Amino acid sequence: MTSQDTNYEPLTVETIPARLSTVSTVTAHLGDDPSTWDAKEVGDGNLNLVFIVTSPKSAVIVKQALPYVRLVGDSWPLPLKRAFFEYHALIRQAERAPGLVPEIYHFDEEQAIIVMEFLTPHIILRHSLMAGTKHDGLADVMGKYCAQTMFRGSDLSMDTAKRKADLALFAENVELCDITENLVFSDPYFNAELNHHTPGLDDIVTRMRADIDLKIAAQDMKAKFANNAETMLHGDLHTGSIMVTDTDTMVIDPEFATYGPMGFDVGMLLANFFMAYYAQPGHAEKEGARDEYQEWILSVISDIWSGFCAEFSNLWRTERTGILYEKTLFEDQGDHLASEQALAGRLNHIFKDTLGFAGVEMIRRTLSLAHIAENDTIEDEALRADCEGRGLRLGRAILVKRNDFADMNSVIDMARAIGQKG
Amino acid sequence: MTSQDTNYEPLTVETIPARLSTVSTVTAHLGDDPSTWDAKEVGDGNLNLVFIVTSPKSAVIVKQALPYVRLVGDSWPLPLKRAFFEYHALIRQAERAPGLVPEIYHFDEEQAIIVMEFLTPHIILRHSLMAGTKHDGLADVMGKYCAQTMFRGSDLSMDTAKRKADLALFAENVELCDITENLVFSDPYFNAELNHHTPGLDDIVTRMRADIDLKIAAQDMKAKFANNAETMLHGDLHTGSIMVTDTDTMVIDPEFATYGPMGFDVGMLLANFFMAYYAQPGHAEKEGARDEYQEWILSVISDIWSGFCAEFSNLWRTERTGILYEKTLFEDQGDHLASEQALAGRLNHIFKDTLGFAGVEMIRRTLSLAHIAENDTIEDEALRADCEGRGLRLGRAILVKRNDFADMNSVIDMARAIGQKG
Repeated sequence: MTSQDTNYEPLTVETIPARLSTVSTVTAHLGDDPSTWDAKEVGDGNLNLVFIVTSPKSAVIVKQALPYVRLVGDSWPLPLKRAFFEYHALIRQAERAPGLVPEIYHFDEEQAIIVMEFLTPHIILRHSLMAGTKHDGLADVMGKYCAQTMFRGSDLSMDTAKRKADLALFAENVELCDITENLVFSDPYFNAELNHHTPGLDDIVTRMRADIDLKIAAQDMKAKFANNAETMLHGDLHTGSIMVTDTDTMVIDPEFATYGPMGFDVGMLLANFFMAYYAQPGHAEKEGARDEYQEWILSVISDIWSGFCAEFSNLWRTERTGILYEKTLFEDQGDHLASEQALAGRLNHIFKDTLGFAGVEMIRRTLSLAHIAENDTIEDEALRADCEGRGLRLGRAILVKRNDFADMNSVIDMARAIGQKG
Repeated sequence: MTSQDTNYEPLTVETIPARLSTVSTVTAHLGDDPSTWDAKEVGDGNLNLVFIVTSPKSAVIVKQALPYVRLVGDSWPLPLKRAFFEYHALIRQAERAPGLVPEIYHFDEEQAIIVMEFLTPHIILRHSLMAGTKHDGLADVMGKYCAQTMFRGSDLSMDTAKRKADLALFAENVELCDITENLVFSDPYFNAELNHHTPGLDDIVTRMRADIDLKIAAQDMKAKFANNAETMLHGDLHTGSIMVTDTDTMVIDPEFATYGPMGFDVGMLLANFFMAYYAQPGHAEKEGARDEYQEWILSVISDIWSGFCAEFSNLWRTERTGILYEKTLFEDQGDHLASEQALAGRLNHIFKDTLGFAGVEMIRRTLSLAHIAENDTIEDEALRADCEGRGLRLGRAILVKRNDFADMNSVIDMARAIGQKG
């Protein structure tokens, strides 16, 4: 669907009150008098319009897809249907990971509008990671979120016919997957038009683009992303898709949702923490001022992974009702050991994929179109190149050698070694 | 779709002429006078009605799905829509592997009827393998068929949006996949209701059902089958789905078509040759009379695999136009070595999957519902158990240890060693 085929019309701060005043699920929150509503455009993402609409009674978020990439303009068209996929992802995530995604109040497919819960006083986690702010419970929530959405959207849990129908539904999310397929897995490895990188990285970039094992490893991960439909992914789970307070953590923006491998979301997420780790010297008030914060970030990575494993194991033991690794073959035969051995094998499979996708993400966020604010805001170009270069080195290592790490501690130890000064 | 919702009506030899006499693509073959047509029911499969309709001018095959499993009766309903999937698979296979599947003359979705080319003097390969007949070019055709359908139905070749639409289309083939998921991957490994096996196998069956590594390996392959949508599979590529003359080979019956891993079809196919190999002593006119024929079967296995690799490599070098392992990253950078290294990696990946699926197929064809005629027709129960037992041993080895074989020769050597008398 494109805007030409429909009555689609972009919202403005002026038209929002009138256009949403007849939606009962919206007036239930904002009250019946739209003249008291106040709309503010706050979209800082790359793709959409986002408004906060407040009234004396309450506030809601109104998100509307634009028929093109906002960052680039109408030279890069993008289907409005991504709002449909975001809506369908959000309602599934709300079931699978209760309380960890914003509540939906209203969805209008033709207008590509989602009205949802206004999270307050939440801020985007990525901003927090630049400011050096810690968040209690962050790792715990993200480990649970990943395990619950991965497990409950898969053939380990779902009715197969329903999962296949979902697979077919999300298979239509072609254009957003296409962005991932190009920008994440291919562009960084050759001189693609949309690429840009910090000049100080020229040498390492030349080496990486000549690195056969690296290029093949990235394509191996792309093949997994494109073909291994293990579960419904968030599809864009970076630290800009997480909102936090001191004690609360919520996951937003799943418009890239698609069926893919279980390691994809976790890998992207951990990669963004590793990059935030390397970016700290660029944000330190004085040298060494972020040393302890860096260790906190590494502890978050470690805790997300162990939390993921713990919750995945818990769901494996208590909710394994799908067609894979059926209890009929294991527990029902009194064979609990087999079930545990199979679980260990699955976690090992996800671990290796996680490292591969994490490596890919670290490289693309430094060499491809979309970078991260933690690095972009480092004004000293040499320092920025230094931070980014460390991320590239870790990314290359965990992508190409993803099968050669004993556990997440080994990865974190290597990250720390690469992070040492000098 | 079930028969209750529609005007669906099963064909009979009496009603065929009248019911097809108005279809121009049928009369183009049989002529305009249906009174001269003669219909004969020849279905020996488990699921469908199959007629040969002859006229003075020519002959056609008429295949109609029944709303239940023919082998079992209406206690096991099965959607008519499988004819839709068979039709869509056949037209895709005809494009991808030209001349290797029957030509379609007519498809009626509501009546679940496909009218197609009558292959003559072809016979079912499985019957040939019992009779001890060799077929020139068999391995060559099957290697090519597998490589061409695997490669050209995948993200190595297809436009992604088109492949995703196809994935969504075949994702509806739930019930037939469900048969595979249960009968192939799970039933053999516990005392499932539909199972049966030759009594002389009791000991080995008990051991196999207690074999943790084996059960998990089978489930690992099931996870790949259910989730790794690498290409459009035939889905049921055994020697009963191949028709041969002395010099010609054609592939039929793709109603189990679904998107799955590249190793699935090849693995099932090779497994059926391995089982035919082990069954030969049960069909030998006198002891040793089939020794040379057994070696021919092993040469077919070897040649299918090497033919598959050769054609897959050829397509990799000449038709790699999809989103995976793009030439942009390799050849276009002057990096032919990277492309060849990536090819070697993909073939290695397919090889391991092929062994896993071959092992699974050998086990299920001995312990689950559907067995093979080569074994079923061995009247001497002890001899049958002996033939089947050898297949089970090879199946277990190549499934559980699929990552530990250097190449197909090692597998064939092991097959031969297991096949030695005594």
